Amino acid sequence: MNQTNLDGLLADALPFWPQLTPEEQDLFRRTAVDAHIPKGTITHRADQDCRGIMLVLSGQLRAYIVSEEGREVTLYRVQAGEVCVLSSSCLMDAIVFDVLIEAMEDTQVLTLPVNALAPLTQRKPEVELFLYKTASERFSDIMWTIQQILFMGMDRRTAIFLWDEYTRQGEVIPMTHDEVARYIGSAREVVTKVLKYFAQEGIVALRRGKITILDKNKLRQLAG
Amino acid sequence: MNQTNLDGLLADALPFWPQLTPEEQDLFRRTAVDAHIPKGTITHRADQDCRGIMLVLSGQLRAYIVSEEGREVTLYRVQAGEVCVLSSSCLMDAIVFDVLIEAMEDTQVLTLPVNALAPLTQRKPEVELFLYKTASERFSDIMWTIQQILFMGMDRRTAIFLWDEYTRQGEVIPMTHDEVARYIGSAREVVTKVLKYFAQEGIVALRRGKITILDKNKLRQLAG
Repeated sequence: MNQTNLDGLLADALPFWPQLTPEEQDLFRRTAVDAHIPKGTITHRADQDCRGIMLVLSGQLRAYIVSEEGREVTLYRVQAGEVCVLSSSCLMDAIVFDVLIEAMEDTQVLTLPVNALAPLTQRKPEVELFLYKTASERFSDIMWTIQQILFMGMDRRTAIFLWDEYTRQGEVIPMTHDEVARYIGSAREVVTKVLKYFAQEGIVALRRGKITILDKNKLRQLAG
Repeated sequence: MNQTNLDGLLADALPFWPQLTPEEQDLFRRTAVDAHIPKGTITHRADQDCRGIMLVLSGQLRAYIVSEEGREVTLYRVQAGEVCVLSSSCLMDAIVFDVLIEAMEDTQVLTLPVNALAPLTQRKPEVELFLYKTASERFSDIMWTIQQILFMGMDRRTAIFLWDEYTRQGEVIPMTHDEVARYIGSAREVVTKVLKYFAQEGIVALRRGKITILDKNKLRQLAG
């Protein structure tokens, strides 16, 4: 990666970039690591790893938790151009909760390592603020997902409904989100969010007025 | 409240206090509101309120979410001497998730109002950092609770077990947490956390080697 590209990426990704001294900026330039993560690799596992901030250049990362029974729940995804800070959770002593982070596709990542970040978090409140603010955004999304999908049992209710329809009429269910919502007694917005979650997990494919079941096993598992 | 007490409280609660100018400190002194919140009052409801930072002087606040079906889940409690920042979520644009906050007892609260905080969050990254860092600590706790209690279904499994024992041998169940854990196939730490949660909710009382059922209705509800 050439110098101009790297500077552009860092300036876009890090809101505190203009507040850094030339020496501090230079430390980031010298220590940033451009790496390829093959699809399926788990790049962050609970407390075992603390790589630093990961800036996704291409591909996609997924942060998730696993239950005792082995059930996975995706908390959020980090797309190209976005930043993952939970991979630097060792810098944030207020965060003790652990996620796993996996590459969903072949993913190119620029990592700003912990040893360059750590001294800055001491000197510049802007750097620590960036970490906690970005983490809070993700937590805020996670809470929404958990409240709607897990806590309200909407994933299960939607899965049960889709499973019933599948056994009645096959893989293609010709219904709008609004119709599904009325059948299961929920709001369209909630059903849309749940169906998008199912689509991201590869359980269904969504097209206008049509829901296609792709992974019957996962669907049956969700329906319990 | 006299000046010395107020200054001591503010200096203890706000890590950025020494970084404020005398004028900024004075603004906090003049705008801080000392208020009594009667037991059972809901003092923050989703987006409708944005009072500011609440410092609990005595009593206890509870932050919780409510499901569509009306089931409440306590996310965390704010005890005397602790600070609640989600009541100033309008200052944190990275947080869109909403909780309700209720006084569990007659509670005395010192509120630092949003109109004093807002200009500071623009000028001093330390102030915004304090808000996001405190929120992240709470989120971190919440994730643990949700993962253990809701996502892993441990609250339900524990409730079912206690209900079965109650119907067999009455209100007092002479078992240690370790024994309960072995019966339901979980770890003692998890069972202890769930039982503490039940105790905080008034469902059980815990004594060494003994679990007493206090609220049969709530327990049956949890057991489904």
